[in-house]
Amino acid sequence: MKTIIGITKKSYTIEEIASQIGGEIWICGSIYRIRRMSGFAFVIIRRSRDFIQCVYQSDTADFSLDELAEESCVRLKAFLRREARSKRGWELLLLKAEVLSRPKEPSPVVINHKEVNVSMEKLLDYRPVTLRNERERAVFRIEEGISNGFRRFFIKQGFKEIHTPKIVSAGAEGGANLFSFDYFGKKAYLAQSPQFYKQMMVGVFERVFEIGPVFRAEKHDTSRHLNEYTSVDLEMGYIENFDEIMQVETAMILSALEFLQNQYQEEIELLQIQIPDVKEIPVIRFREAKEQIAQNFCRIITDWNDFDPEEEKLLSKWIWRETGSEFVFVTHYPSAKRPFYAMDDPKEPEETLSFDLIFRGLEVTTGGQRIHDFEMQKEKLKKRGLQLSDFESYLMMHRYGMPPHGGLGLGLERFVSRLLNQDNIRYSALFPRDTHRLTP
Amino acid sequence: MKTIIGITKKSYTIEEIASQIGGEIWICGSIYRIRRMSGFAFVIIRRSRDFIQCVYQSDTADFSLDELAEESCVRLKAFLRREARSKRGWELLLLKAEVLSRPKEPSPVVINHKEVNVSMEKLLDYRPVTLRNERERAVFRIEEGISNGFRRFFIKQGFKEIHTPKIVSAGAEGGANLFSFDYFGKKAYLAQSPQFYKQMMVGVFERVFEIGPVFRAEKHDTSRHLNEYTSVDLEMGYIENFDEIMQVETAMILSALEFLQNQYQEEIELLQIQIPDVKEIPVIRFREAKEQIAQNFCRIITDWNDFDPEEEKLLSKWIWRETGSEFVFVTHYPSAKRPFYAMDDPKEPEETLSFDLIFRGLEVTTGGQRIHDFEMQKEKLKKRGLQLSDFESYLMMHRYGMPPHGGLGLGLERFVSRLLNQDNIRYSALFPRDTHRLTP
Repeated sequence: MKTIIGITKKSYTIEEIASQIGGEIWICGSIYRIRRMSGFAFVIIRRSRDFIQCVYQSDTADFSLDELAEESCVRLKAFLRREARSKRGWELLLLKAEVLSRPKEPSPVVINHKEVNVSMEKLLDYRPVTLRNERERAVFRIEEGISNGFRRFFIKQGFKEIHTPKIVSAGAEGGANLFSFDYFGKKAYLAQSPQFYKQMMVGVFERVFEIGPVFRAEKHDTSRHLNEYTSVDLEMGYIENFDEIMQVETAMILSALEFLQNQYQEEIELLQIQIPDVKEIPVIRFREAKEQIAQNFCRIITDWNDFDPEEEKLLSKWIWRETGSEFVFVTHYPSAKRPFYAMDDPKEPEETLSFDLIFRGLEVTTGGQRIHDFEMQKEKLKKRGLQLSDFESYLMMHRYGMPPHGGLGLGLERFVSRLLNQDNIRYSALFPRDTHRLTP
Repeated sequence: MKTIIGITKKSYTIEEIASQIGGEIWICGSIYRIRRMSGFAFVIIRRSRDFIQCVYQSDTADFSLDELAEESCVRLKAFLRREARSKRGWELLLLKAEVLSRPKEPSPVVINHKEVNVSMEKLLDYRPVTLRNERERAVFRIEEGISNGFRRFFIKQGFKEIHTPKIVSAGAEGGANLFSFDYFGKKAYLAQSPQFYKQMMVGVFERVFEIGPVFRAEKHDTSRHLNEYTSVDLEMGYIENFDEIMQVETAMILSALEFLQNQYQEEIELLQIQIPDVKEIPVIRFREAKEQIAQNFCRIITDWNDFDPEEEKLLSKWIWRETGSEFVFVTHYPSAKRPFYAMDDPKEPEETLSFDLIFRGLEVTTGGQRIHDFEMQKEKLKKRGLQLSDFESYLMMHRYGMPPHGGLGLGLERFVSRLLNQDNIRYSALFPRDTHRLTP
């Protein structure tokens, strides 16, 4: 009987190619750009993570340049020669070409210039093609680096990865903003967060994390909202105070940014990313933050329970002026604005042991200590007018014993978007979902 | 201003504790079990991934044993002494105890025996508590090892991780088995698979993978179906034939199982897992497989287009007898039973260049080569009676150029469930979703 054995072929890395100077190689890729010059042409090949400059000359190639088209996929045989004027110090002189596929028609959007020069709407409408642009796709290499950096940190710190259900019977943040649907005759919802499940799993594994999709039926059509996004969640047991959660977040961001700098230097340069300093992050209480905003920007505060987007920006600005930090932890949010599972401050029961992390003017994380005591949680649910019976399986963990614990959720797209100083979060979502957009 | 710096505290590892023999340490954990003996008691502490045996003696402890309860969370001070009769060669003699939390009441299910001896229904009803059992939670350490093993392999092989939307406008497998809901006035669905998006991303990154939730509104209430599961998806460009995809899958499984053996030996022993040999995997064409089943098990084949569950088991049995392999690739499934994006075999147009991987009698993977040519895909859609306009954004990639490519999707819970020889896939889902179960 025929058998299959494990074989993995990988494209040559740039280093492997460079080591072949003076020799011939075969490489695969898409033709990103053809630039006809006088007497020769540059043919730029797009590969998984790099672009390679090839030179076509009719006297050395055994095919006609007309056989190649932009966005054709090809296998090319080439001679690798030194070329001081090329960015890499070498270039490929084309010898043979095998065309593997041809596009039906040229892209309706110019994708092979430095930037894709169209409106955001068009950029997103043609996402499968516009992502082929060098800069557009680099954004998602950065996202990969950040997300992998977080994951490596979690694993090293003993957090266990979990996969929690996205089809749920109740929302973690309460009734609003939930997508609902019929689930075999029952009403089901899409999970707004893995909150309930990650807490339950602290009772099992002490420290857990999940990087996965969450869903919010928010009607806000703003530059900072997505209706589906990737949430980086962690939850940890045996904490002594909620500072520990902020300490872990600081370490986690530091670790991810270091990983990014080690592994994604080309993308960092291409996108001209300013890596923020995160050795220490200032902390301010919510009330004091409000007062500083009022005082420093002559602003009348109308809502003492929450920030509006403008206030987050002003706070960031003030913190930056005062401390030079692009991050700030805001703590002790009013209990009224935090979910029922947030632990109230025993010293100031109107405030919670919770925090947000604001990065360059945008909230990227919400976290805090949770209630672990059954009676305390029961009381808080009742005070909020919520039915205990609706939370029976959630309360099971409190009933049968839980350690003191807390955690956080970080919006991956928001984090990347601020890192890249984009003016709209949609640029950091591969296929964004907003109130208008369901395709591609 | 107060600042937070990155600090990470981790529990001592078993090795770190063992290095302190003759000294005193503090550890945190849940009290898993108290066994009162004559004159002393064993107190077993559950931690993130291990259990530690402690000894309580009233003459050395400065607290009463009655202060401790099973499922209390505690901080303990203890003296670490050699003890040949203990599994680890040492044990902790308790000195002080700080009770961090107490359960409201004892668990209604006995969770601290070797196994949780209740029906599957009850086991799942009380999941937040029953997962605290040593064996139950070890299942998800195995899942973590497999999933991480796959991920490490992918990263090493140059696959880029992607996060594709779960809210979609059309299903990859066609109209049936989709959960649908209202999305701001439009009809939306939950993604059955990242198929369309991972293909699109091959045009951008050549090789991509995703490990994430998928949703199937299948009404099957069987031991092998879940309505939400974790799909391990990969898609790769520039393939020369579809054997390459099977070769990568073989290498990926081999790599994950090796990782498991290196990192999860305790769980492997606890669950008595037989790691299958996967150095080579037999391959059989679908039609021949059917014939062998008919011939070897005197079975009348009624459906020549697909297997039924019994046939998958019989095929596995026969392959095992013939080759000693617990895996088998079945190739060339009839075109009629494969989705519209499957590449037909140019030599046998009624068959597809596709495969399933069957592991211990259960299909765990479906994969194959996809159509990359625009005209070919258009024709196949038309032949199926599908509206091109419904697939406009999907066809964009074909229209503007795609490399030859293929990929696969592996059901993580199915794979783990077969690895553990469970008789029901629900045991491998943290919080399974089936036609009846929406909580916890």
